[in-house]
Amino acid sequence: MIFIHKIKTLEYSSGKLIILDQTKLPNKTEFIEIASIDEAYRAICSLSVRGAPAIGVFAAYSLVIGAKANLHLPITDFMHALKKDAVFIASSRPTAVNLTWAINRMLKKLESTNVYDTSQAFSILEKEAMAIHQEDISINKQIGHNLLSLLNDGDTILTHCNAGILATSGYGTALSPVYLAKERGMNIKVYADETRPLLQGSRITAYELNKSGIDVTLICDNMAAVILSKKLVQAVIVGCDRVAANGDVANKIGTFSLSILANHFNIPVYIAAPTPTIDFNCTSGDGIPIEQRDALEVKKTNDTFTSPQEIKVFNPAFDVTPNNLISAIVTEKGIAYPPFNESLKSFR
Amino acid sequence: MIFIHKIKTLEYSSGKLIILDQTKLPNKTEFIEIASIDEAYRAICSLSVRGAPAIGVFAAYSLVIGAKANLHLPITDFMHALKKDAVFIASSRPTAVNLTWAINRMLKKLESTNVYDTSQAFSILEKEAMAIHQEDISINKQIGHNLLSLLNDGDTILTHCNAGILATSGYGTALSPVYLAKERGMNIKVYADETRPLLQGSRITAYELNKSGIDVTLICDNMAAVILSKKLVQAVIVGCDRVAANGDVANKIGTFSLSILANHFNIPVYIAAPTPTIDFNCTSGDGIPIEQRDALEVKKTNDTFTSPQEIKVFNPAFDVTPNNLISAIVTEKGIAYPPFNESLKSFR
Repeated sequence: MIFIHKIKTLEYSSGKLIILDQTKLPNKTEFIEIASIDEAYRAICSLSVRGAPAIGVFAAYSLVIGAKANLHLPITDFMHALKKDAVFIASSRPTAVNLTWAINRMLKKLESTNVYDTSQAFSILEKEAMAIHQEDISINKQIGHNLLSLLNDGDTILTHCNAGILATSGYGTALSPVYLAKERGMNIKVYADETRPLLQGSRITAYELNKSGIDVTLICDNMAAVILSKKLVQAVIVGCDRVAANGDVANKIGTFSLSILANHFNIPVYIAAPTPTIDFNCTSGDGIPIEQRDALEVKKTNDTFTSPQEIKVFNPAFDVTPNNLISAIVTEKGIAYPPFNESLKSFR
Repeated sequence: MIFIHKIKTLEYSSGKLIILDQTKLPNKTEFIEIASIDEAYRAICSLSVRGAPAIGVFAAYSLVIGAKANLHLPITDFMHALKKDAVFIASSRPTAVNLTWAINRMLKKLESTNVYDTSQAFSILEKEAMAIHQEDISINKQIGHNLLSLLNDGDTILTHCNAGILATSGYGTALSPVYLAKERGMNIKVYADETRPLLQGSRITAYELNKSGIDVTLICDNMAAVILSKKLVQAVIVGCDRVAANGDVANKIGTFSLSILANHFNIPVYIAAPTPTIDFNCTSGDGIPIEQRDALEVKKTNDTFTSPQEIKVFNPAFDVTPNNLISAIVTEKGIAYPPFNESLKSFR
């Protein structure tokens, strides 16, 4: 990985968890140490750390940080506190499924081991979080490899929000083929939707691609139809926060709109989905809870109101793109094509 | 007109032209006096005054202001200076056709009269600008009346950018049925796209509707698909900057995208178009020049960068919606339905 050393979403070492505060990008590169489960919860809610895969890895490490504070407790109290921490951190955001997936994996690992003291339990948790972290890095690369098989050297893609380095621990999901192409001496260019209201596309995607020497052009979300109609891109590639068993996909608000537009112009829509993002318990998108966020995200930018202060706002953080608008769901285990009800099963 | 007295786009009286500086909305209500043709040019370029119909009226008054400075000249020099002013002000923005329409009408009026001195010429110009102004007000109301015939009491519409009071001299075009409904004791509610990058939807549409007691909900442009899919609106109504003879419509960037989405969900798209906006010399949308604006409009909000400073940006101010996505073009003279090549002819 030749670019990733320049930008790091999170880092854990010897009981110390550090994240890049993404709310400050692109103007400031500030790191925060997460020293308690409360701080971890706030970091997720405030979007200092975001992106479904990164949240999964971060949640796993959060349990380690939480557990560190309880090493002095009797083992049963330690386990009780851990479960409380797990419920608490799982409640930070409702839509992305990687969060609960990672937390459940941590708990299950401990439950399946014969634990006799807190320091042994802590060490198991730490090892499992590191494993989740390392797996995310290799999942990223494998998704990039699979997505790259759908593209040609010289292609341009259009992406929405940020499903890159800063949404994961590695090369990202949707942006992984772009970085992998560069590693292999190929060239994939990118149009990035700015992604209102929180501008993850301009603040984060444009930032990380630019820092990595990728050719990137920023557009407002409402300009995508023009780009697509002129056939300036060969594919739309986005990440996801949860995939239902039937292939309906929850992702950043605006993905639904972009997918309709891409279909209108016969441009393929590829969803980059690590298998932990697939929720087989969710039969369709109707079952995915959509987080409604603060109206101030839409009404204010940089502490100044850009609308009347008292105005009503509709501000869902995500939308659900129905499976009929999706050309392929690309996981680390392979590529699923419609009908997804069938094709996704093999990744179970 | 019961609400309009609260908000005024522009006012002319005894050689004095005053506009509301729309770049300062919604936080400040500041008025600017336009005392020269240079100031008029800058007011259009900076979007202190915007909206195709308002620009038309403003351009007419600008010629009056320009002429006022030349009253001391011999009549031939006065006429020469007027034509120079006309070319200059016409070059301020390329897409909206009302600008050149109003300017040409002013020149033609003078040319068709037997002018003997500058004060007589000035008075003809002043009278013609006032006539254009008054006509805009009644065009607004008639468009509102015609649009209202396509809606039912209690309906909700979705609009993009601002085609309201502040884009015209009266009730607006796209928003005219909303104000007219209120005047008649009916109730039309509005979802307003915020309209990136310059946020005319949140800064201006939400502002004027809210000030007029209309039920308005602000959304980001990328949320429209969710609103449309849930059938929360019964129609999409927008204004326009130029209509080609075949019914292709240039309007604020994002209109094309919104029209595709509305068609996907079988929700009608109505274009509110004063007949001066129809350019019969333009056979299709391909002939409409699209203004590209400064990348900083996308990269900065309230003087703070929200993207890497050096990033490439694509920033067209308008897009062209092809006629096949449009349900009706609603003018003050009547409603045109497809095929527009035929139906628009009667408004010639």
